Amino acid sequence: MSEVTTLPPIVAAIRENRRALARLLTRIENNAAAAELAALYPYGGQAHLIGVTGAPGTGKSSLVNCMAKAYRAEGKTVSILAVDPTSPFSGGAVLGDRIRMRDLHGDQGVFIRSMATRGNLGGLARTTSDMIRALDAAGFDIVLIETVGAGQSEVEIASAAQTTIVVEAPGLGDDVQAIKAGILEIADILVVNKADNPGVESTLRALRAMLDLGHRSERIMHHGKLMNVPAAPILGEEAAWQTPIVQTIATDGTGVPELLAKIAEHRAYLRASGVQQLRERASLRAEIEERLRDLLLAHLLERVGVAHFQAVVERVLRREIDPNSAAGLLLAESSRDHKP
Amino acid sequence: MSEVTTLPPIVAAIRENRRALARLLTRIENNAAAAELAALYPYGGQAHLIGVTGAPGTGKSSLVNCMAKAYRAEGKTVSILAVDPTSPFSGGAVLGDRIRMRDLHGDQGVFIRSMATRGNLGGLARTTSDMIRALDAAGFDIVLIETVGAGQSEVEIASAAQTTIVVEAPGLGDDVQAIKAGILEIADILVVNKADNPGVESTLRALRAMLDLGHRSERIMHHGKLMNVPAAPILGEEAAWQTPIVQTIATDGTGVPELLAKIAEHRAYLRASGVQQLRERASLRAEIEERLRDLLLAHLLERVGVAHFQAVVERVLRREIDPNSAAGLLLAESSRDHKP
Repeated sequence: MSEVTTLPPIVAAIRENRRALARLLTRIENNAAAAELAALYPYGGQAHLIGVTGAPGTGKSSLVNCMAKAYRAEGKTVSILAVDPTSPFSGGAVLGDRIRMRDLHGDQGVFIRSMATRGNLGGLARTTSDMIRALDAAGFDIVLIETVGAGQSEVEIASAAQTTIVVEAPGLGDDVQAIKAGILEIADILVVNKADNPGVESTLRALRAMLDLGHRSERIMHHGKLMNVPAAPILGEEAAWQTPIVQTIATDGTGVPELLAKIAEHRAYLRASGVQQLRERASLRAEIEERLRDLLLAHLLERVGVAHFQAVVERVLRREIDPNSAAGLLLAESSRDHKP
Repeated sequence: MSEVTTLPPIVAAIRENRRALARLLTRIENNAAAAELAALYPYGGQAHLIGVTGAPGTGKSSLVNCMAKAYRAEGKTVSILAVDPTSPFSGGAVLGDRIRMRDLHGDQGVFIRSMATRGNLGGLARTTSDMIRALDAAGFDIVLIETVGAGQSEVEIASAAQTTIVVEAPGLGDDVQAIKAGILEIADILVVNKADNPGVESTLRALRAMLDLGHRSERIMHHGKLMNVPAAPILGEEAAWQTPIVQTIATDGTGVPELLAKIAEHRAYLRASGVQQLRERASLRAEIEERLRDLLLAHLLERVGVAHFQAVVERVLRREIDPNSAAGLLLAESSRDHKP
């Protein structure tokens, strides 16, 4: 969006120097990069942000590597951000890093970063989206965001991507399919990997049945919450995106060109339909609200004092007052004492 | 804690009349019961709150029914709250309700309520804990909270229980085991249900290995976040709770008496060690903070005006300002304009 000479120093640095980028990502992880994030934000918006999620055992990491190689063959630069939110307390395993390193090592057009869980889920989602902004501003054509799992965590992280791919595999069992009802709803593209394994036909049948059951919807802001609403009223029945199912074999690359074609098609749809802007507005609004919630609470605690706050918690613990009334009380006290 | 004649009307009503209780739970679901919750809060604290979670296919619902019948045989009153957070957007299936109704129907000492997801996860966790408070104040000896799944959602909901039981079953596959690393950490008691199925030995081996790997920890408040910390420094190596593994066959009740004995043992441990109070303080503090966050944001939006807030979101969408700076700006504006 501007000439190299006019770039802010942080943007020039992360575009020229991988170590500077790695260091910035570490500062983002440590929540100590507010100034850099403010400076680089105007220089993002060019990358295609692609989320890839699915349960362990689906071959998701191999697929991501395969996709990265295919994008490289098209001359595109790729960054991979692998996020593991499955272990909320003790820090999860780093996703398929060894395989990744072997496959992609030495290619200057690929950048890889892994992040295990630290702190709470909200913090993880925010750190992820800040890291994506840095990778975007660093000039990568493609940002692949890989998350493991099949729960609410992945839904939150996936909401940072523009195109979300959910990876399934044959033979993981009906129980596993059942738990994925929620995650299917966030899929823009479904991939059945290991398509040469036995049971692929029944997996395809099950997925088609679930897609038929669900009405295609779009994630937008609704009554102040980020949620799915039926797409048809926004776009008309015909224009709404029909989630395709793509079969792949990541170990030999079968189906990956078709997958990349569907991803490109989805990006074109997002832009032409205006859905991209709807989604982005909704998630930015939710993010700003969440940041405000944190800032406001910190200010309140400063005003009423941590000792007083703890005293109120003790009253609730003794059942003298309920948690909701306690919150109301603290709010009233903080407004009364407010002297700017 | 006081004589019937001195009970607030809402407490008397829900203790005497199941329909009044059901109506109150509906008002709680609709977030329209603040006054009732304030009135009943002092009358809770007697029930044992037991969370039961596990993936679909583990026979968790049958086990919960079995436990309810066993508690009834001991003369205890039981309520069951079944929560399904797996489908974040469209509302999940109601858990095993038909089986439940067949088994427990007509027993006045059992009360059952199901809740599918509505709205966001934070909202669901809060509604769940408010419902638990109502069931507690209604005088049930046992409140069983059943959630399906294996992710962050269950961790949040489980934090409302005093004793958390994680149900596994043989033959769900190594992949499924892997994803449960996080959920195992919240288990006070592990149950291997369907203990007559093939593969039970390898499931037991895998669980024992995971328990050996993890250091026993306690959920308490740490740096302002609800998280697990090693129990040993608090309690000493000897005194810390050792997560037991209990084998059950819910279809014929095998192992259920042993499970109930372990649950009673865990309750005694929680009280004697002081861990119950540590946990309760931590989760009340987190809840009050969360309620304050919401109240504070609502007040800010009122002060700056929704139109202005949306205009700032549009500036972020055009990349004129980053989300963090936008939040700072709105906060500064709201303080400046503040006239009480």
